[in-house]
Amino acid sequence: MQHFASDNYAGICPEALAALIEANNSGHEPSYGDDSWTQQVCDRIRDLFQTDCEVFFVFNGTAANSLALASLCQSYHSVICHELAHIETDECGGPEFFSGGSKLLTATGENGKLTPDAIEAIVTRRADIHYPKPKVVTLTQSTEVGTVYSVEEIRAIAAIAKRRHLKVHMDGARFANAVAALDVHPSEITWRAGVDVLCFGGTKNGLPVGEAVVFFDQALAADFAYRLKQAGQLASKMRFISAPWLGLLDNDVWLRNARHGNAMAQLMARRLAAIPEVKVLFTPQANAVFAELPPRVAAALRERGWKFYQFIGSGGCRLMCAWDTKQETVEQFTDEIRALCARQ
Amino acid sequence: MQHFASDNYAGICPEALAALIEANNSGHEPSYGDDSWTQQVCDRIRDLFQTDCEVFFVFNGTAANSLALASLCQSYHSVICHELAHIETDECGGPEFFSGGSKLLTATGENGKLTPDAIEAIVTRRADIHYPKPKVVTLTQSTEVGTVYSVEEIRAIAAIAKRRHLKVHMDGARFANAVAALDVHPSEITWRAGVDVLCFGGTKNGLPVGEAVVFFDQALAADFAYRLKQAGQLASKMRFISAPWLGLLDNDVWLRNARHGNAMAQLMARRLAAIPEVKVLFTPQANAVFAELPPRVAAALRERGWKFYQFIGSGGCRLMCAWDTKQETVEQFTDEIRALCARQ
Amino acid sequence: MQHFASDNYAGICPEALAALIEANNSGHEPSYGDDSWTQQVCDRIRDLFQTDCEVFFVFNGTAANSLALASLCQSYHSVICHELAHIETDECGGPEFFSGGSKLLTATGENGKLTPDAIEAIVTRRADIHYPKPKVVTLTQSTEVGTVYSVEEIRAIAAIAKRRHLKVHMDGARFANAVAALDVHPSEITWRAGVDVLCFGGTKNGLPVGEAVVFFDQALAADFAYRLKQAGQLASKMRFISAPWLGLLDNDVWLRNARHGNAMAQLMARRLAAIPEVKVLFTPQANAVFAELPPRVAAALRERGWKFYQFIGSGGCRLMCAWDTKQETVEQFTDEIRALCARQ
Amino acid sequence: MQHFASDNYAGICPEALAALIEANNSGHEPSYGDDSWTQQVCDRIRDLFQTDCEVFFVFNGTAANSLALASLCQSYHSVICHELAHIETDECGGPEFFSGGSKLLTATGENGKLTPDAIEAIVTRRADIHYPKPKVVTLTQSTEVGTVYSVEEIRAIAAIAKRRHLKVHMDGARFANAVAALDVHPSEITWRAGVDVLCFGGTKNGLPVGEAVVFFDQALAADFAYRLKQAGQLASKMRFISAPWLGLLDNDVWLRNARHGNAMAQLMARRLAAIPEVKVLFTPQANAVFAELPPRVAAALRERGWKFYQFIGSGGCRLMCAWDTKQETVEQFTDEIRALCARQ
Repeated sequence: MQHFASDNYAGICPEALAALIEANNSGHEPSYGDDSWTQQVCDRIRDLFQTDCEVFFVFNGTAANSLALASLCQSYHSVICHELAHIETDECGGPEFFSGGSKLLTATGENGKLTPDAIEAIVTRRADIHYPKPKVVTLTQSTEVGTVYSVEEIRAIAAIAKRRHLKVHMDGARFANAVAALDVHPSEITWRAGVDVLCFGGTKNGLPVGEAVVFFDQALAADFAYRLKQAGQLASKMRFISAPWLGLLDNDVWLRNARHGNAMAQLMARRLAAIPEVKVLFTPQANAVFAELPPRVAAALRERGWKFYQFIGSGGCRLMCAWDTKQETVEQFTDEIRALCARQ
Repeated sequence: MQHFASDNYAGICPEALAALIEANNSGHEPSYGDDSWTQQVCDRIRDLFQTDCEVFFVFNGTAANSLALASLCQSYHSVICHELAHIETDECGGPEFFSGGSKLLTATGENGKLTPDAIEAIVTRRADIHYPKPKVVTLTQSTEVGTVYSVEEIRAIAAIAKRRHLKVHMDGARFANAVAALDVHPSEITWRAGVDVLCFGGTKNGLPVGEAVVFFDQALAADFAYRLKQAGQLASKMRFISAPWLGLLDNDVWLRNARHGNAMAQLMARRLAAIPEVKVLFTPQANAVFAELPPRVAAALRERGWKFYQFIGSGGCRLMCAWDTKQETVEQFTDEIRALCARQ
Repeated sequence: MQHFASDNYAGICPEALAALIEANNSGHEPSYGDDSWTQQVCDRIRDLFQTDCEVFFVFNGTAANSLALASLCQSYHSVICHELAHIETDECGGPEFFSGGSKLLTATGENGKLTPDAIEAIVTRRADIHYPKPKVVTLTQSTEVGTVYSVEEIRAIAAIAKRRHLKVHMDGARFANAVAALDVHPSEITWRAGVDVLCFGGTKNGLPVGEAVVFFDQALAADFAYRLKQAGQLASKMRFISAPWLGLLDNDVWLRNARHGNAMAQLMARRLAAIPEVKVLFTPQANAVFAELPPRVAAALRERGWKFYQFIGSGGCRLMCAWDTKQETVEQFTDEIRALCARQ
Repeated sequence: MQHFASDNYAGICPEALAALIEANNSGHEPSYGDDSWTQQVCDRIRDLFQTDCEVFFVFNGTAANSLALASLCQSYHSVICHELAHIETDECGGPEFFSGGSKLLTATGENGKLTPDAIEAIVTRRADIHYPKPKVVTLTQSTEVGTVYSVEEIRAIAAIAKRRHLKVHMDGARFANAVAALDVHPSEITWRAGVDVLCFGGTKNGLPVGEAVVFFDQALAADFAYRLKQAGQLASKMRFISAPWLGLLDNDVWLRNARHGNAMAQLMARRLAAIPEVKVLFTPQANAVFAELPPRVAAALRERGWKFYQFIGSGGCRLMCAWDTKQETVEQFTDEIRALCARQ
């Protein structure tokens, strides 16, 4: 049975699994990333972004974002993020832990998005040493509520960031979905727009485990390998973390996976919008749909075994589509909702 | 080509890979460990140890040891370890980082092993607040130099630890090799001997990635799940970390793998001991052999492509055998050494 | 010239200075608190609170609050505080730093005060490991906006805290002002009401430097001396930090100082309330008055050399009275405001 | 009664106390260092060192050294120090705490002094990411065993440090005693010799509380004020920490105090050397004497009330002379030793 609780309920996509199995057939390989697979994947990611970036692999998104942020600021600095940012709401204090105490300064903004004005307001609010100095602004692309920053929005944020001497970090747990939604080259919403560091999500895109941290500003990556090692994020049998990326990168499987998830979300949104008792929240652009369901309907769905989360930030239900979500699952799920709504 | 640099050069053993693939066939599964595979593996580990322990999965040994130690002491406490302990020599300050500054107090000891007297000496040396209060003693089993603590040695250390109010932690990156070498039940060298927490190594035993942290004293595991989450060690698609353990645990594959590595090391040691120019160091008991080779011989081997480490702690070469090390590789390697030594 | 920017603009009160000088006349004294003065002051604080509490001295309020909170929770736990709490707004991430990443969860509340309902709402909002588990609730007494929690309010908060397994911490940078305002025994608003740890402010009450951390629950103070040492908060010539407290404690100078500051604030509030163009905010109960002044008036006052802060939390001006604020200064200041307001 | 346990048993020297009292007579002063006294003292220290350095005041030596070191390296870097260095032996893990886990790499060396060769050996021992990268070398001047680095020794160490891209930190808890002993300009053993940051000790030199952190490389001081604030080392009534330095700096009282302590140590050493049963260790150059006393003599002295420490690093007794140690105390103490030794 498939669910809409999270895109991390899905398994490994066939291409990633094939690459993992192939990497296992090569016998002994040097550990800690000195293997041929890892170097190859790093090069492929550089090719993908069309720039000489530094690439590191970590085990999950908590580590990717927390360590990237820690490398951009000291403990007495602060990070500007949206109030719905995953690093603020769902990392159990991971960014604060890895940075040794950097504070997250939250801003509000429509559709889960930061704005230049909100950033400016936070930066200029205080300038005394009793308040941690802002050093980083972080965007989630696609956002926690399934929306996507446009190229222009990212550029505008990066511009204000540069003027205020802030580094720009992108939480790209669902970066692929954003690229697919915008139909742009990945460089257009990252380094060409002013992003310094991208946490490029692999797990939700079809990997078993692992994210890539991509430093477009290579100077910021100095000694980052030591940071990973100390922080328990250096895999000994690294090829099993890196090689599966080949499965995603070859033939643009990563985009195909993302497009599929996005399409399923569009289908879900269209079908939900047609049900009078249901209200679709935000504007679904990536692979998430947020919708207010009548409480009795949500309860009935759960009783039937469907898993999905209530979203704390909005009051609605969060419905995530994965790379493997089937059209018939979406149809069945929305049919059940329609039927439950119709019932008195 | 196979190497003797590290047992983490080896890949995934067939049984672990099969379990991973099977876990991927079940479709959507709840994330963060709420899946059926993870619960099953935890139960299997409890069965294995014949006690109701708490089991957690992390990505690697740095994290396993550092987080386990951090849960046993505060930043102003200290951890007693052998001067050759991996946590002291090869974790880039990981234990200090995760604990927020706990100091490692190192002791010397024959064959890479701590002794009750050495521990006692450290505990009683200072009792003022200018020195971090010892709270934990940590053993590596099997040790960093390929030796193994006997049941009696562990009991004696645990006894002094209890008397001095120290918790006992075991770095079991190669725990399987120790169990295989001693031919005892795993409980005999852990909780029945007084060990509070075991970091049970899976990677070197044939997994792609992952170690288990086993709390025999369940009270010590309180809120450890939060600690893992914050520290970037909670896998979202947890089943791909946990399920491969089934491949190891079913039919005692973990012991078979360990016995094989140990046997290859015994073969290596026997053959090296028979070469007059070579001196075998320590007493090989697990899957490592340390040997002094004539420098020109070591150089020649490396020129031919063999990979192995110079061991900083002893001056010798460290030669590790893995679960998949072939008998003919050991024979060829030692034959080459013999031939190179013979040549003037 | 006197100012209203902060009660820490004031110097050392005569009695504290006399005690410091006397402590210097005794010649050599053991360091790090093993002197006779420090023991004496600890006993005096125990007498004051009528209970066998543990007492420690630190250099300032950042350290007092941060270290006390760090001793009550682990890095993956959280602390519930008011959104205007000093630890949230003015410690540059100190609590996060000393705790290794504990998150502050802020609540709103009238008059700068937490309520049982607000605490309950935060505790029950989430119960998953992606969010740091609440472990502490912290009150500032008197509050950052010059109000005071009544005995009943503290009891109600402590009751909900106990039910939810939260420890209760009190930031008492201006504890003396609260005791003076309520005219209660200090035990009534601390341990008898359910407070576990009090940071008892000395600096703003007339000391040159130093605060006391008072653990009413002695078990929570285990190894706290080590924590202080490691965190750079153990004075070598401790008697110069502790002895001045004798000057405050003898003859209830601490209360006299606080009553004076409170009285000056009352005078200030009365005189400001009588000026039509001025709006007094909150209800001044301790030694602070918050008032909205016409911007041109505030600017003119500053031009004449008066120092005071704009309060970020409310839009008004914060006017603090100290132990040494003179009645004529308050009168002159408010006369000038009246005159400036009258002028067109 | 005077003691030889530590130079921090002494009180405040008259000049420092007078400055503190004078600072208290000026009424209200801006807090957190924006007062006139603090600016004045910073300028005086710049004048003293004849360079435009950045000066900060902290409460004690633990904080001074730990925060200075933390500003020179990241958590995955390491600090090279002598095995007898105070930061290694007596700070309860303070440097590890403030840096978030930086490891101290200890070297041996005669007379408590690091050598260029020892530093070189540590730097070149490892170059892999499993070992924290050395970033700082720290010298204690005068050393923990009462010896003093010559100008040439410091220059030689700084030269190797620069070549290896290490910053040079000086723990100057007894910096004054070293300057007095060498009779050089303070710049000669600091920035002119290649020292980047000095922790300039005030407490042992006659202050009630406080040390200065002096950054000769101003770039290294960027945002250090935020670091101090977050770390609980920013005094609100800063003038009481800074002003007493005026008492030390005016008329070179700091040197007079140091010279006196040194002279008393010389007297002590001469008189002890003349007692056959006593062996003076190291070469007393500053204000400390280390001597092996017959155990029964040491015990008898303690019974009579004399306080002094057994030195863990050498087996001898550590005898510290302070700015106020009286000649007759030294004479009486050594007379008693002579008499006790003579007695069978």
